[in-house]
Order: sequence, then structure tokens, then C-alpha cells
Amino acid sequence: MTKLQSRLYDLIFEAETRDGRRFDLILIAVIVSSVVVVALDSVASLNESYSMLFLGLEWLFTVAFTIEYLTRIYCFPKRWKYIFSFYGIIDLLSILPTYMSLIFVGTHSFAVIRAIRLLRVFRILKLAQFVSQQQILSQALRDSRAKITVFILAILPIVLIVGTIMYLVEGETNGFTSIPRSMYWAIVTMTTVGYGDIAPQTIFGQFLASIVMVLGYGILAVPTGIVSVHLSHAILKSQSNTETCPSCALEGHADDASFCRRCGSPLELA
Amino acid sequence: MTKLQSRLYDLIFEAETRDGRRFDLILIAVIVSSVVVVALDSVASLNESYSMLFLGLEWLFTVAFTIEYLTRIYCFPKRWKYIFSFYGIIDLLSILPTYMSLIFVGTHSFAVIRAIRLLRVFRILKLAQFVSQQQILSQALRDSRAKITVFILAILPIVLIVGTIMYLVEGETNGFTSIPRSMYWAIVTMTTVGYGDIAPQTIFGQFLASIVMVLGYGILAVPTGIVSVHLSHAILKSQSNTETCPSCALEGHADDASFCRRCGSPLELA
Amino acid sequence: MTKLQSRLYDLIFEAETRDGRRFDLILIAVIVSSVVVVALDSVASLNESYSMLFLGLEWLFTVAFTIEYLTRIYCFPKRWKYIFSFYGIIDLLSILPTYMSLIFVGTHSFAVIRAIRLLRVFRILKLAQFVSQQQILSQALRDSRAKITVFILAILPIVLIVGTIMYLVEGETNGFTSIPRSMYWAIVTMTTVGYGDIAPQTIFGQFLASIVMVLGYGILAVPTGIVSVHLSHAILKSQSNTETCPSCALEGHADDASFCRRCGSPLELA
Amino acid sequence: MTKLQSRLYDLIFEAETRDGRRFDLILIAVIVSSVVVVALDSVASLNESYSMLFLGLEWLFTVAFTIEYLTRIYCFPKRWKYIFSFYGIIDLLSILPTYMSLIFVGTHSFAVIRAIRLLRVFRILKLAQFVSQQQILSQALRDSRAKITVFILAILPIVLIVGTIMYLVEGETNGFTSIPRSMYWAIVTMTTVGYGDIAPQTIFGQFLASIVMVLGYGILAVPTGIVSVHLSHAILKSQSNTETCPSCALEGHADDASFCRRCGSPLELA
Repeated sequence: MTKLQSRLYDLIFEAETRDGRRFDLILIAVIVSSVVVVALDSVASLNESYSMLFLGLEWLFTVAFTIEYLTRIYCFPKRWKYIFSFYGIIDLLSILPTYMSLIFVGTHSFAVIRAIRLLRVFRILKLAQFVSQQQILSQALRDSRAKITVFILAILPIVLIVGTIMYLVEGETNGFTSIPRSMYWAIVTMTTVGYGDIAPQTIFGQFLASIVMVLGYGILAVPTGIVSVHLSHAILKSQSNTETCPSCALEGHADDASFCRRCGSPLELA
Repeated sequence: MTKLQSRLYDLIFEAETRDGRRFDLILIAVIVSSVVVVALDSVASLNESYSMLFLGLEWLFTVAFTIEYLTRIYCFPKRWKYIFSFYGIIDLLSILPTYMSLIFVGTHSFAVIRAIRLLRVFRILKLAQFVSQQQILSQALRDSRAKITVFILAILPIVLIVGTIMYLVEGETNGFTSIPRSMYWAIVTMTTVGYGDIAPQTIFGQFLASIVMVLGYGILAVPTGIVSVHLSHAILKSQSNTETCPSCALEGHADDASFCRRCGSPLELA
Repeated sequence: MTKLQSRLYDLIFEAETRDGRRFDLILIAVIVSSVVVVALDSVASLNESYSMLFLGLEWLFTVAFTIEYLTRIYCFPKRWKYIFSFYGIIDLLSILPTYMSLIFVGTHSFAVIRAIRLLRVFRILKLAQFVSQQQILSQALRDSRAKITVFILAILPIVLIVGTIMYLVEGETNGFTSIPRSMYWAIVTMTTVGYGDIAPQTIFGQFLASIVMVLGYGILAVPTGIVSVHLSHAILKSQSNTETCPSCALEGHADDASFCRRCGSPLELA
Repeated sequence: MTKLQSRLYDLIFEAETRDGRRFDLILIAVIVSSVVVVALDSVASLNESYSMLFLGLEWLFTVAFTIEYLTRIYCFPKRWKYIFSFYGIIDLLSILPTYMSLIFVGTHSFAVIRAIRLLRVFRILKLAQFVSQQQILSQALRDSRAKITVFILAILPIVLIVGTIMYLVEGETNGFTSIPRSMYWAIVTMTTVGYGDIAPQTIFGQFLASIVMVLGYGILAVPTGIVSVHLSHAILKSQSNTETCPSCALEGHADDASFCRRCGSPLELA
């Protein structure tokens, strides 16, 4: 590993040094800009007026990302490991579509190419891994996962039964044209989104819908409760004393504890 | 009880053995597939194109469930107890409609028959009983039940009063055609579903609706709070030490407790 | 106070005796029935078909409530105190409109008379006071009141500012015809009701609305949090030991505490 | 500083004295009235009928606020500091537009002038600073800020990806005309607002939307959980013993603690 490789590695892959952090901030700004350009390019009126500007910017970003991609390959010790890592593939997919648009000059595949370019946004997630607050949130969400999965599985039969009853009660004339569509209505209603594109018209249907809404509200309090409880644990854990008891190795003491709560030995406070 | 009965019983009714768990997973897959087929069959466009395929699959599932039903009767020690149990009746109702469709070849009763078939989904709930996470959620919901019932009873008079006032203020020209319909609007609004099929048009009506929304949001925070609190208890309970104090028989000690919190006797840690 | 008065008082005003509880249940059933009749009577199609039935039932209920009202006056020790109490006035307002409809045979005042009759629903609240779960909920809501009031006052300026900006951005052509109407939209959006009768059409308006929704969701988490915290306190309080320490008079001990947590004196367990 | 200046300062800037509190209440009433007048003035029908009344009231409020503004400058010790403070500028902006409307008699700029006048509402926030409940809420929101910011940043990529997929799936014919508009739909759906101005029409789009709603609901439980946890801390902190341990200076003791939980020294109870 040459000196240049080592210095580039510190700049690009490390976030602790001052230059590394500065590089990360610039990279985030460039990624966000490129994503904004792709998004705005999809607006018909803007696309007509600024078509050339967007194309120019797109090539500018692509060239910049290509240089960055090649540098990453150059300075990473185990090249193939980076190339086939999740973020390595994302980095490649971020630049490939623009080059491919030179070969396939079809107008129809344009929307898909545009979408692939937006995968660049995942690169921000990589940079966000270092934020401490994010770790607390991830921890809470990871702890909640099992319960929320069970919860959603328990909700599905309810959605099916409610959807089917509404399909029988309201029928095709009132927009409940099939069981899957009625299930879609049930989900729209129980999550309190309530588009109103499908709504019960008969008195009995409205009565049933009212019950579904009230019960649905109670049921959907569950994920909020799950996340609250696990978040509370994660926050408390992150705030608690990181000290380990020197005599019994117990962790997780209160913030201001001077003595181990299990064996009473004094904790060495920093 | 013959050896065959005993082996079949272990396979079908037990979830602990490896074969039993494998059987459960296959059964879940078949139930979900059969439910999906019934649901897709109700979509008019799919029904026209794949009518024969759906009919064939339906008979395949029905025959499979019939064999399973008869095997269950065969190998369960107290046959009549199973037949008249909740899940025994569900199992019967899952297969009966298909056979009945041979006798009653009316097109109109078809939707109802289809709906009865979907009761198969309840069979999944039986299989889900063994998941430990589900027990925590059930415990929390069971503990919350009394409070949420009282809460819903307390909400109903508010819905009635709000609905009646809006019926007087907005009147029939703005969609508030009767008191029950206005109550339906009140529920749609207070649960924050907000279809928009009925919405206040007069300034005074919109002013009242605004108050209802803000207050409704505060009031509906209650079920979330109830579930959170009981869920927190249920999770703590499930995480706590299952040890029982050997000298005073107190349960529910903290995760890392070494001594009984009531009598100070040492707990035997596993 | 005669023996009859005393026995009637026990029957009507007491809920502890077996007859008193039975009387309360019958009364709730009659009140709910009368409210349902008034509500159904407002549905145009039902009103035409069952007009005579509803009128008959209404007079039946009115006569029953009148007898009950007179009995209450007869057996209550301090008559005038009952008559001018909140529930005394509600009881009177529940029966008066039907008698007044004999005098004022105008069709127009009918809707208002109907509405006044629905005040009967408040009588259920009186009967609900004895439920213990309801006390926990009331306690939590009473404790939350101050914070939620401050919270709503803090929200109003935000609603005004957001409403005004949207009024300037979207203008009258897109439905934001005045500042009050824009504020109505802001409340509909921030409470996540989202009727869709007014929705931003311009790109900048939709951008602003998106920010309002995301921030609004974060802000509206506040009442849920407030109620959760106070509910948690109220539940813990209701579950805790009602024992008072005999030596230092401290209350609120843990459920299974045998010794006072302040002075260490043993608590006399029942 | 003259005696008059000193007395006016106590009246206007202090909230502890009886006259000061009375002055604050009158000021809040006047501010709210002036805001209501500006808001009602924007309603076309009211503007036509009461145009002169609103103009008169507007000048009345403006003159009153001008006198108050000049008095504040007169009696504040460090004049320039007040004039260039946040609230000094708000106070000036509250009165300037009315005077400017004399010079620029254009009808088009009228809406903007009206909007600036509404900045008066911020003056209420200044007066609200003294409420103790508000301090608990502010504390909780300030503590939640970092986590909610991280959370919103984590949501944005999801909104982008979901929006882009729906743009590809539904296309321009179903209202998803561009990526920004699809992202607007994703936010409207994930915050459960659900206007219904844009809604998926294809079966696959509705299927995707259902997943977004259910997951979105789980994800959006996070801010509620964050605020709950920090609110709980802030309330507990505000309720806890304000006593400081005389021997080790530890704060934050339980409400009824008589001894320091760190060093065991007795706390002097008031």
C-alpha cells in the first residue's frame, strides 16, 4: 500500500479526521444535489425548459462519482471485497445508467434509468452510520422488529375478514369491486390514511366502517407502544454509566451510581 | 389408540417435534395459497381469464383440507370434542362451501360461499399461538381491554353530541343528511381517517370541525397511552427473572437480582 | 322521610345494592334505546316509513322518564338541590321537548327539539361514575389538562402562520379563499385528518404542505406523550399498596412491600 | 432613568406585579382581536360588507400598538438593544404595514401586507414564556430535537425510493406526473394525512401503497415514542425534590426521599 493510497483511504473511508469529515460533508451535498436534479428532471414543465442544463449537470455528477468510484477501488486494500460489497454495487449503479444512456438511446427506458440513478441516495445512509443518535433509533427499531412482525401478521387476517365483509355488504356498485380492493380499503382505513377514493355508501357499511376505525385505532396503538417501550430502553441504556463493576463485572449502572447495585463494590468513577 | 393414530397425532397436533413443525409450515403455506386464490378469484378480470385454473386449485385445496380434516378426527383421542371445538368447526366450514357449490348451482350465493371459505385464515391463528412475542402482545391487549372499553363508551356520547350539532349546523344540503350519518362523519374525523366524502362547508361548521379534530386528537391519544403502559409492563414481566425465592416464594425479580427483594434470601441462579 | 321515600332513594340513587344496580342497568338500556330512536327518526327514509312507531316510542320513553323524574324529586331529601343540579336540569330537558312539541306544532323547530332530547345521553355519564377504570382515565386526563391546553395555545400561532403562507402561495383559485379557510386546512392537515376538500396544487404549496405534515406529525406526538406519561402514573398509583405506614404515615408503597420505604417500619399487611 | 420610566418598565416588562399581569392579559386580548380582524378581513364576503369597520379597527389597533411600541422604547434602559431584538423587530413589523398601506395604495400588495400584520401573533409567545407547563414541554421538545432530525433525515431516502417506484408503476395517467409529485404523495400517505387528490389506481400500485401505509405507520410511531420518553423525563425532573444533598450536593432526589441516595446523608426537608 503506497503512501498515496493510505492518504486517500484516510480521506475517503475515515470520518474521524478533519479532512475526512469535510470530504463526507461535500459528498453528501453533491449526492443530494444530483438526486434533486434527477427528481426535478422528471417534472415535464422543467424538463422542457432546462433539458440541456439538467443533462450537463448529470454528466458533471457522473464524472465526479466515476472519479470517486475509481479512487475508492484504487485505495481500498481488498479491492474485490469493496467492488462486490453492498455499497460498492450501489456506487457502480449510481454511475452506470448515464453511460448506458449513450448506448441505448431509447426514450422509453429513460424513466427506469432515472430511477436507478436515484439509488445514489443510499450512499447517504452509509455516511449516516456514524451518528450516535441514529444508533439509539436503530437499536430501538431492531428490538421492536420481532413484535411488529408478529403484529402485522396478526393484522392481516383482520384485514382479510373486514375486507370480505365490506365486499359482501357494499358490493361492486359502491367501489368495492373485489376482495383484494376491499382489503386495500381496509388497510387505508385502519392506518387512518383515508384517501376517500373508496368509501362505504350504505348505512350498514358505514356502521361497520365506524367500528373498524375505532377498533383499528386501538389496534394501531400497538406499534407506537412497542417502539416507545424499546426506545425508552435504548435511551436509558445509552445514558447509563458505561462503567463495569470491577468485582462482579455487572454493567448498566445508573448515571450517578458509585457502588455496584449487585455486590456493593465501589465503582471506579472516571 | 393405535400406533398409527399416535404418530399422526404427533405430526398434526404437536409443534415441538421437527416433523410437526415442518407440517405446520406446509399447512400455513397451503392455507395462505388457498386464501389468495379465493381473493384473486373475486377480481372480475382475473375471474374471466383464469376461471378454470381457480376452480381446479380450489378443488385441490378442498380435497387436501378434507383429507387433513378426516385425519384429525381419526387421530384425536376424544373425537367429538375436536369436532365441536372452535377450530373443528372452522376446519369443517373451510371445506363445506366447495361441496355445497355442487348442490346449489346458483350464481348469487357464490359470493357468500367464497366468504365462508376465507374462514380458513383463522386456522393460521391457531398455529400462531406458540410464538412467544405474540403472548406478550396478547397479554398487553388483554390488560388494556377494560380501559379501552370504558374509553370507547365515553367517546360515544361525544360522537352523538358532535354529530347532532353538525347535523343542525350543516344540514342536509351539505351532506349531513341524518344524525347517524353525522355520527359517521364524527367518527371518521375523530379517528383522523378523514375520507372527505362528507366535509363541512359552512364557516361555523369548519370552525366546529377544527375543534373536534384538535380535541379528538388529544382524546385519541388515550388508547395509545393505555396500550403503551400495559405493553411496557408485559415486556418487563417477560424479561424479568423467572426464579422464585426459595424461602418466601416471591416471583418477578429483576433480571440480574441475586437476592429476594422481599426477604433478602439469596436466589439460586441457574 | 317516609319508609317509601327511603326505599325509592336506595333503588334510584344507590348503586351498591342489588336492586339499585339492576335499576341502573334497565335505565341505561332505556336511555340508549330512546337515543337510538331519536337518531333513527332523523333518517328521511326511516322517518317516512315508521313515523307513527317512532312517535309512539318517543311518548312511551317520555312518560317513563317523567315518572322517574317525579319519583326522584319525591324521594330526594333536599328537593330543590336536585332540581337545580346539573343532572336535575338534564333530566328535565330530556322530557320537556316532547311536551313542548304539543304546543309549538312548527315543523322547523323539530330538529332543535330532537337535538335537546339527545341530552339524555349525558345521564349515562352519571351512571358511569362508579366504574373504577373510568377513574384512572379521568385522573390521567385531568393531570394532562394543563399541558394539553398550553400545547394547543402554542399550536394556534403555527396554524395561523402556516395558513397565511398557504393563502399567499396557493391563492383563491386553488381553494384557499381566505385566511380562516387556510387555517382550517392547516388544522385538517396537522391533525392528519386530510379530507382532501382543499389540497395544495402548486409545487411550492405541496412542498410547504409536506414540511407541515412531517413537522405536524412530530408536534402532535406531544399530546400522546403527555397522556401516556400521566396515564402510567395513574395506573401505577391505582395498583400500589393502599397501606399507610403506621410509624411515618407514608403512602404509595409497592404492591408487595412489607416494610416502609422511608423509615423501614413493618407495614401491617391485610 | 426617571421615576416614570421605571414605573412604565414595571408595568410593561414585568409579569410578577398585579398591574403587570393585568397589562399582559389586556395585551393578549388586543393582539388576538387584531389577528382575528385581519383574518376575517381576508374572507371575501365579510370584506365587502364590513370593509369600513375592519379598516377602522385596524387603525385603532395600529395606533394602540404604536403607542405601546414607543413607550417600550422610552422606558427600556438600553433602547437600541430592544429595537434590534427579535421581539423589537416583531413589534415594529406589526405596525409598519398599516402605515405603508397609505403610501403604496396598490391592491396587489395588500395580501402580503396583511400577512406581515399577522406576525403580531408571535408577541403572544413572548408572554407565554412565564408558564411553567410550557417549560416542561419545551424541555422535552429540545431533548427530542436531535433524534427527530436524524429520524426525518432517515425517512427522506425512503420517501424518495417509494415515490420513484410509484412514479414508475402508476405513471402520469394516474396522477403521478413527476418524481417530486410522487414524493409528495408518499409523504401524504406515510404521515396518514391521505388527501386522496392522488391515489394509486393499478392493483400493483395499491399493493405497494398498502405496504407503505403499514410500514409507514410503524416508522412514524418513532417520533411519538421519542417525545413520550423525553416528556416523561422532563415531567419526572420537574416533580422531583428540588433539595440538594448538604454533604455531597447531589440533586434530583425522589419526591419523598429523606436521605441522599448517593451518600446517605439526611436531606433537610422544608
